[in-house]
Amino acid sequence: MRKNDPATNNREIERKFLLRQLPDKLKRSRHYIIEQGYLATESAGRQVRLRKKDKSASLTFKVGRGAHREEREIRLSQKQFAALWPGTAGRRLRKVRYEIPWKNLLIEVDVYRGRHAGLVVAEVEFPDRVICRRFRPPPWFGREVTGDKRYSNVRLANE
Amino acid sequence: MRKNDPATNNREIERKFLLRQLPDKLKRSRHYIIEQGYLATESAGRQVRLRKKDKSASLTFKVGRGAHREEREIRLSQKQFAALWPGTAGRRLRKVRYEIPWKNLLIEVDVYRGRHAGLVVAEVEFPDRVICRRFRPPPWFGREVTGDKRYSNVRLANE
Repeated sequence: MRKNDPATNNREIERKFLLRQLPDKLKRSRHYIIEQGYLATESAGRQVRLRKKDKSASLTFKVGRGAHREEREIRLSQKQFAALWPGTAGRRLRKVRYEIPWKNLLIEVDVYRGRHAGLVVAEVEFPDRVICRRFRPPPWFGREVTGDKRYSNVRLANE
Repeated sequence: MRKNDPATNNREIERKFLLRQLPDKLKRSRHYIIEQGYLATESAGRQVRLRKKDKSASLTFKVGRGAHREEREIRLSQKQFAALWPGTAGRRLRKVRYEIPWKNLLIEVDVYRGRHAGLVVAEVEFPDRVICRRFRPPPWFGREVTGDKRYSNVRLANE
């Protein structure tokens, strides 16, 4: 989930799930195309990602694996983005993101395009660890894949 | 060497040398403090570097080793830099860079500070491969260390 203030430095607490089925309200939900690529990635989840979401561009630094990660994000101008984007060649992916409000949370459903068409995952970000632990997935959620490298975007972008 | 246009995407052609002695004109040369750190680095020289040089901040993507590298650089606002800089903790270095015009070229002498105090290297960037090959180092240059990982800034920043 994007932060309200793009310069905010903080820890993300989120969980990721496969979907048993697409929710009925999917098509009526707010959605947009995300295009992202990786400039550099290390083990331990350290990565620098470029992302374009509608017309807004960003650069995000992440480190750590699983439900708790450190994340630092800045907005980029179109010119800054254009200068760096070629560096992500061969390490990109596209997906449509649907935002589905659910109880007091927001479920983000990512429908992958291109090579990974058919893959659909849901991510939920939590305001704290207690709410994260207590989360009861809706019935249309499938297996939890939080921290599963096979479903990391870095891995998918490189496959 | 910094590019005139920070958004220019190009290949760097440069060579790096140890110094036998400091040149006489060093202290009279233009110089400034460089502080840099790495958000992420991979093998094959792939890296994302943050740098502060006087008051200007930049983010640079590099890939490749040795004399020929691809480099993409953008300027960052102070706010963008401040948001990302903490991500480089433990992967930083400081040096004073002296710019010494030499024939039609510019020699950059880097005098390291902190843990690497005592280390001095010179870098020369060339407009093309022919001039690069034909370069005759001045007598105060020592051994060439182009592509030698021991003197890569990434390695020094992580030591």
